[in-house]
Amino acid sequence: MTDLTGLSAFPITPASASGVVDVAALRGLVGRLAAAKVDSVGLLGSTGSYPYLTRDERRRALDAALDEAAGRVPVLVGVGALRTDAALDLARDAQAAGAAAGLLAPVSYTPLSDDEVFEHVRAVADGSGLPICFYDNPGTTHFAVSPALLGRLSRLPGVVAAKSPAAPAAEVAGRIAALRAAVPDGFRLGSSVDWHAAEALLAGSEAWYSVAAGLFPRPCLAILRAARRGDGAEARRLDAALAPLWALFRAHSSLRVVYAAADILGLCRAEPPRPILPLPAAVRADVAAVVERLGLG
Amino acid sequence: MTDLTGLSAFPITPASASGVVDVAALRGLVGRLAAAKVDSVGLLGSTGSYPYLTRDERRRALDAALDEAAGRVPVLVGVGALRTDAALDLARDAQAAGAAAGLLAPVSYTPLSDDEVFEHVRAVADGSGLPICFYDNPGTTHFAVSPALLGRLSRLPGVVAAKSPAAPAAEVAGRIAALRAAVPDGFRLGSSVDWHAAEALLAGSEAWYSVAAGLFPRPCLAILRAARRGDGAEARRLDAALAPLWALFRAHSSLRVVYAAADILGLCRAEPPRPILPLPAAVRADVAAVVERLGLG
Repeated sequence: MTDLTGLSAFPITPASASGVVDVAALRGLVGRLAAAKVDSVGLLGSTGSYPYLTRDERRRALDAALDEAAGRVPVLVGVGALRTDAALDLARDAQAAGAAAGLLAPVSYTPLSDDEVFEHVRAVADGSGLPICFYDNPGTTHFAVSPALLGRLSRLPGVVAAKSPAAPAAEVAGRIAALRAAVPDGFRLGSSVDWHAAEALLAGSEAWYSVAAGLFPRPCLAILRAARRGDGAEARRLDAALAPLWALFRAHSSLRVVYAAADILGLCRAEPPRPILPLPAAVRADVAAVVERLGLG
Repeated sequence: MTDLTGLSAFPITPASASGVVDVAALRGLVGRLAAAKVDSVGLLGSTGSYPYLTRDERRRALDAALDEAAGRVPVLVGVGALRTDAALDLARDAQAAGAAAGLLAPVSYTPLSDDEVFEHVRAVADGSGLPICFYDNPGTTHFAVSPALLGRLSRLPGVVAAKSPAAPAAEVAGRIAALRAAVPDGFRLGSSVDWHAAEALLAGSEAWYSVAAGLFPRPCLAILRAARRGDGAEARRLDAALAPLWALFRAHSSLRVVYAAADILGLCRAEPPRPILPLPAAVRADVAAVVERLGLG
């Protein structure tokens, strides 16, 4: 079974205005990540716009990515959906197709209780047999996962890991310690929020679920490797070098920035799904300048 | 064209565990509301679980409700969706079926900017020809609508009204005045949040978009009528009599409470869509006691 550690790179899912996935462009993105030797590909994450795509298109994207990645890199795939039965269908699709694990966020419209999230995750893990990484993304789900709830979730059969937002530097060690105390040995704790990831890795986070790595895997791998060998000074130096990218992510959202960057780099010409708009020309020029200045791509 | 004023009653949408609408049960709920002479039925609102149902099921629900309501009460219908093209399809379905207006909430996963919400609403209103009531429901969409944005939206052709959450009593007059100052004459401002609705009506809100009225139209109509004739003392007395119901709504969410109440009253046996769970037995007993004590149903 795939061990959910290291750098997990989250590409966008290039698609037409009507939501038809451009599988050739997606293969190109996944192939770059495999060649860069990331530890896993996080397909159809929030960056991959999973909630905006139909079940059929998500399956097409997964089949293409798995075929491209075959034998080179494991593929995690977002299986979140508003309805429990829909998330279970997606997890069964992913299990049948050969995904390494499913990323399951507590997507909601009506705000959910802890018990509702617990039963949702249990139904999906139990009914699919797919290893599940619980996907804590309060910026999109607006659900706050306490250490106590993560402790309950982490004891469900098949729930093997969590992707949690990394706290700012001053709080990250305490936050990871609180989560670690709540989960059993062997349960993998990983972090999102790229601009806090270096400190999270240095504080013991076992995986970096990265938007930036979906387009720029090499500088992210360099940060990961420095952190893993305990070289905090080098990890922080490499992270600081990416500060202009992090500033764009924070100001305009990482999703909108990586769509623009993929286009600037000539990797694909996709736009995010409406109502999400492409960045205005002036901001796009800022993205192009940062990509150029940092030697990204 | 329907004037969006008065009491708009929001029923649940009874459906099977797999999301197939029970059109006979829905007709029963809509028929009760028509007989009670509410000013409109708010079909497939948040209480009607619209985001949890497919386009086909939403169309089945609308056709059944319109047929039941024909000539008796106008039907507003939720047309919100995560994708702009999906919301436009739903609005076109609603226009073709004969709905009086569409309720359009800025549903999101990736948080949206003001410009993105504006373009989303413009595309749906312009492309469908359906009169649109902008549906400001920050508890589910997590999008905060400023008076300035509502002012822009209210000037879009086809956007005729807004449903906004009523502020607590101390703030409601100021909030409504701020919205009123931002929108053109004739644009209809209405309120949700049942436990603040009486004060909102007394402060000049022109419509009450009500969860409670979806099951209990008569006591809500009595509040509306007292407020309309300027009898604040009577409106407040009637509102205070419903305080035990409002307490249940606040503690357990109005959605979960009205599902339980519909079952207790023998109107339908539906449960909310999973992951939303039915209320536990002890809370259900509290709901039954309040329904009995207040003489609801």
